[in-house]
Amino acid sequence: MQKIYFQCDYAEGAHPKILARLAATNLEQTPGYGEDIYCAQAAEKIRKACKDESLAVHFLVGGTQTNLTVIDAALRAHQGVICAMTGHINVHETGAVESCGHKVLALPCGEDGKITAGQVRKVCEEHNALGRDHMVQPGMVYLSNPTELGTIYSAAELKEMYAVCGEFGLYLFLDGARLGYGLAASDNDLTLPLLAEYTDVFYIGGTKVGALFGEALVIGNDTLKKDFRYIMKQKGGLLAKGRLLGIQFDTLFTDGLYFEIAAQANVYAEKIRGAMEKKGYTLPAPNHTNQIFAEMPDKDLESLGERFVYSYDRRVDDTHSCVRFCTSWATKEENVDALVQAIEAL
Amino acid sequence: MQKIYFQCDYAEGAHPKILARLAATNLEQTPGYGEDIYCAQAAEKIRKACKDESLAVHFLVGGTQTNLTVIDAALRAHQGVICAMTGHINVHETGAVESCGHKVLALPCGEDGKITAGQVRKVCEEHNALGRDHMVQPGMVYLSNPTELGTIYSAAELKEMYAVCGEFGLYLFLDGARLGYGLAASDNDLTLPLLAEYTDVFYIGGTKVGALFGEALVIGNDTLKKDFRYIMKQKGGLLAKGRLLGIQFDTLFTDGLYFEIAAQANVYAEKIRGAMEKKGYTLPAPNHTNQIFAEMPDKDLESLGERFVYSYDRRVDDTHSCVRFCTSWATKEENVDALVQAIEAL
Amino acid sequence: MQKIYFQCDYAEGAHPKILARLAATNLEQTPGYGEDIYCAQAAEKIRKACKDESLAVHFLVGGTQTNLTVIDAALRAHQGVICAMTGHINVHETGAVESCGHKVLALPCGEDGKITAGQVRKVCEEHNALGRDHMVQPGMVYLSNPTELGTIYSAAELKEMYAVCGEFGLYLFLDGARLGYGLAASDNDLTLPLLAEYTDVFYIGGTKVGALFGEALVIGNDTLKKDFRYIMKQKGGLLAKGRLLGIQFDTLFTDGLYFEIAAQANVYAEKIRGAMEKKGYTLPAPNHTNQIFAEMPDKDLESLGERFVYSYDRRVDDTHSCVRFCTSWATKEENVDALVQAIEAL
Amino acid sequence: MQKIYFQCDYAEGAHPKILARLAATNLEQTPGYGEDIYCAQAAEKIRKACKDESLAVHFLVGGTQTNLTVIDAALRAHQGVICAMTGHINVHETGAVESCGHKVLALPCGEDGKITAGQVRKVCEEHNALGRDHMVQPGMVYLSNPTELGTIYSAAELKEMYAVCGEFGLYLFLDGARLGYGLAASDNDLTLPLLAEYTDVFYIGGTKVGALFGEALVIGNDTLKKDFRYIMKQKGGLLAKGRLLGIQFDTLFTDGLYFEIAAQANVYAEKIRGAMEKKGYTLPAPNHTNQIFAEMPDKDLESLGERFVYSYDRRVDDTHSCVRFCTSWATKEENVDALVQAIEAL
Repeated sequence: MQKIYFQCDYAEGAHPKILARLAATNLEQTPGYGEDIYCAQAAEKIRKACKDESLAVHFLVGGTQTNLTVIDAALRAHQGVICAMTGHINVHETGAVESCGHKVLALPCGEDGKITAGQVRKVCEEHNALGRDHMVQPGMVYLSNPTELGTIYSAAELKEMYAVCGEFGLYLFLDGARLGYGLAASDNDLTLPLLAEYTDVFYIGGTKVGALFGEALVIGNDTLKKDFRYIMKQKGGLLAKGRLLGIQFDTLFTDGLYFEIAAQANVYAEKIRGAMEKKGYTLPAPNHTNQIFAEMPDKDLESLGERFVYSYDRRVDDTHSCVRFCTSWATKEENVDALVQAIEAL
Repeated sequence: MQKIYFQCDYAEGAHPKILARLAATNLEQTPGYGEDIYCAQAAEKIRKACKDESLAVHFLVGGTQTNLTVIDAALRAHQGVICAMTGHINVHETGAVESCGHKVLALPCGEDGKITAGQVRKVCEEHNALGRDHMVQPGMVYLSNPTELGTIYSAAELKEMYAVCGEFGLYLFLDGARLGYGLAASDNDLTLPLLAEYTDVFYIGGTKVGALFGEALVIGNDTLKKDFRYIMKQKGGLLAKGRLLGIQFDTLFTDGLYFEIAAQANVYAEKIRGAMEKKGYTLPAPNHTNQIFAEMPDKDLESLGERFVYSYDRRVDDTHSCVRFCTSWATKEENVDALVQAIEAL
Repeated sequence: MQKIYFQCDYAEGAHPKILARLAATNLEQTPGYGEDIYCAQAAEKIRKACKDESLAVHFLVGGTQTNLTVIDAALRAHQGVICAMTGHINVHETGAVESCGHKVLALPCGEDGKITAGQVRKVCEEHNALGRDHMVQPGMVYLSNPTELGTIYSAAELKEMYAVCGEFGLYLFLDGARLGYGLAASDNDLTLPLLAEYTDVFYIGGTKVGALFGEALVIGNDTLKKDFRYIMKQKGGLLAKGRLLGIQFDTLFTDGLYFEIAAQANVYAEKIRGAMEKKGYTLPAPNHTNQIFAEMPDKDLESLGERFVYSYDRRVDDTHSCVRFCTSWATKEENVDALVQAIEAL
Repeated sequence: MQKIYFQCDYAEGAHPKILARLAATNLEQTPGYGEDIYCAQAAEKIRKACKDESLAVHFLVGGTQTNLTVIDAALRAHQGVICAMTGHINVHETGAVESCGHKVLALPCGEDGKITAGQVRKVCEEHNALGRDHMVQPGMVYLSNPTELGTIYSAAELKEMYAVCGEFGLYLFLDGARLGYGLAASDNDLTLPLLAEYTDVFYIGGTKVGALFGEALVIGNDTLKKDFRYIMKQKGGLLAKGRLLGIQFDTLFTDGLYFEIAAQANVYAEKIRGAMEKKGYTLPAPNHTNQIFAEMPDKDLESLGERFVYSYDRRVDDTHSCVRFCTSWATKEENVDALVQAIEAL
């Protein structure tokens, strides 16, 4: 019997509407490298959704590529990027940022995987007081929203972070690989216009939210807009048939599809979360997005593992492990029900 | 009226069989990052086609990404890569190789866009005699086949180049962005098994030969195989839904589709070439692949430009320019006929 | 009145014997870039002192330069270097290692500023178990001896570290910017032959131990020896008048001068340490080398600061700070006595 | 018998006045890293000599280090530096510039080793017309004065180059490793104030003009001044005992020593040049600085080689080679006379 995957949010292909659009446009001839009509249309829809016509929008294939391209475009040689110790760029990108010459300045974060404006202020003040030219100069703050643990930043937290960044001359970059799930969370108060206003650059993740692949990068800061396509090309991030990205984001931003599918995934996650809480499992980093972290007895995990695939996070104690279950735009209700029943039956 | 594109070989989407496979497998759940069954199948087919079970096969999204990943994986910090002055890595990748820290050692090439084993020998001998540790050490030779000008290397030329590389301790890397068109050319005597035997690493281009995107990298050299996926990830080249690449190459290497569509594109190119020769245009860098370079009177170009899109190469003299027409796997016979008639009518 | 510096160990020029040698040889004509007779002689003396004729010895101008050159020469693109959170390369070199493309994998260290073989084993095991190609691969361990806090590694600790490095395929690199003071410490059991045997590469610091400038790099690992001068040149580390380095190390390694002057500095440090202990100050990271860290009342520091220059380390609590006093080869007995009396008088 | 070196201009130590100053100040205690009084004094003298109090002056140890630091500080990731095919950064620095991520855009140069404003304009216009984001963007022009062939730029040429740079948004950087010999040449019309006015950054070479080592970097462009010391530190170019550089340049810029010793070297070079011309040798790249390139019969070279050391440049034909003789601040009149007589006796 085929196991059911709750391991990640990129186990399937794309939303059927996207496949249909790709098929419908397949033999049209367009210019390459994102200079086609579909990229223009998608960018325009994103600008509208962000309520800011001055934004530059670029489409890239994947998250690591987007992160390294933005960071290398933004920083001078002696500057580094501040992020949470658990940040994707610090842990899971095989040193992509360092490969471009920049240090990741990792800050300890709490159980919620977030860093605070106060922490950033402290790092900058210490740098100015002590280190100066013998230490890497902070040049950017990198946030993920949702974070690696599924938690989200509030509008107030973002505004405070942006203010501190402005004060110390840092760019604020928000990695939105799972942005849809964050914006659709029941306790969220962020919006695309707020993101456009209170970051210098952020991206709207497609790979994990309905697309075959693709991330829509939104640049608000004028300095960062300059020559950005050069850096994309240099890093191997300028897709020859760029329209594939345009078509996908055009579809996702038509009739609110992006938000609709993300909201549904969150609903499914909430059902699973409910079953786990009822069972008494500890759920660290509580959140209302599509990732469920749970500390579970090893024997329960073994039992569940016979039918379901989850991802391993870390050892908790001699008899418990922390694991992650993910829902996504592609999760089927019947599979959620099967999982919930299995949990209840443990 | 919509113009007809002969500007490049990436103006359309993918071969319909590929789209059909993507749709058929869309909601299957697979592991990410190329560790799925489709990538395994495609790799196995490529190994079989190369008649070498020891080859490592990886799938990447695009050409620049593939080039920079291979070159950075292969070279130590003080080493550079030899290529033709007109080489893609030297001219059209925004310094991607240098961005990874390596100098491109560009050699003058003739009208055919090729470099010779003799040139490589001379560079290496001079380096050893004169430069030593104050000069960049040659560490790799980069060839494109077909070259930027559509010409191809013979088996004898490749063998001779590989022998010189062996003698001086250089890797031989062949960029096959348009490999299908080269292998299907009427005057070609190279084969996949010969490429596997007489290079250290090469790639089979998909983006320009039927795929939505994707390049299949084939590594024969054991040293280069080691830890290659780390470098792919670091450079942003490990696609989350890696199976998209596996499915495409599996399709292209089923029932010889890859070679069949390339051969057809060459036939169309030959028809266009014939019309141009009959018209008396100079065709520099004669070849039998899918790119036609022609030196044409500006007035003829202006006239053709009303219905057809070509790409501009360079100014020849006061009244002539060199331009490029490309056919591809997606070229329609009716469009070829229209172009031929238009040329005849000039 | 001129203040007395105990701020660092590079406040003066060079040992008078070195200046005399430079003057005596000044108008001799020699080949450049370290290919002169003095570099050859100095290298030979160092090989003899290490009891290993197979060692490669290179001379570089400074510590940051040496560190970045060694690390970039040793690591492949996807590899990082493990070091203590307080390590010089992690904190005080403005991201020189990252600038060469490599992540510094910083480990928490105790109050003694040291990392253990057990910690390295754990990092490597976790990497192999979990991270694999999405995480930076450990490729080297970097130790400083003495550490940034003046503490030293024992022979047993070094051997254990080297064994773990061997087990996991890591290079072991020891930064000896203050090596003389370490080897001359009263509780030291390391020797140059042990360093040559139980590291892959290490350096003997000159800048802080009697030279105008200069570090003698000693490479035992054959793989690392290959083409090392190319990397030195590329990083700007091949001094044109290389003999200046040869002459200095030849002098330092004649009649044990290097060890003699280091031992004297340690004796002076011990006197200062004694005065502080008598005064009841907390001395974190106890050691017997030339650096004295002390947690002192702010009012005492203010008072001392009128005549003496020390360096500020960190705030301890509302009324105490941790500061550093350094002795060196150039420290004058009268100045030590003055400092001791001033402490006693507080 | 000891041979006489005319091979290069860094075969000896330093001008005796410099050694004397180093000895006189040896045991003074100063802050490190160029924040001492001697660096301040030397910088002030250089600013005065340049008649511009707003200049930033930094001292580095060597030329390759200076070049890579300036270029990496100035360029964004996608930008390259234009220079002559024979430029030092293109040929003799083991890819230091590429190691920092930047392409060297090498232009063909005539026999005089110079590039022209017209060439730079053409490259920039072509880039803007054709290449755009798929090609490296020119970001800087690098000149050497004197060039690698000993020739010099006129004030008119420099002004024209600076104007073109301004027009296309390029920095102009002048490598003055041998600047003294250039400014002291009989046909020179450049001055330090002109260099300060018509470049963005240049350096005054010490290593080849009287110092033990050291280059004084002069930055006029305000954007480039920002955070420059961070980049110096990161690249390993911030000398711990920075005063060694300050003392040397302070001495060289006292009572015109720098220019006096350079002028004398040029006088000696002129004598040798005269003897060669009388003998009928071809002197390519005619100049009046301290480098003499001559195409000589191999048998004459063999004969001279018994007593004199010169450097080999290239093969001219079956019986002739081009070689280089250098004078320097340290050249002795008796050695010049010996060489002249030996040439006359051939």
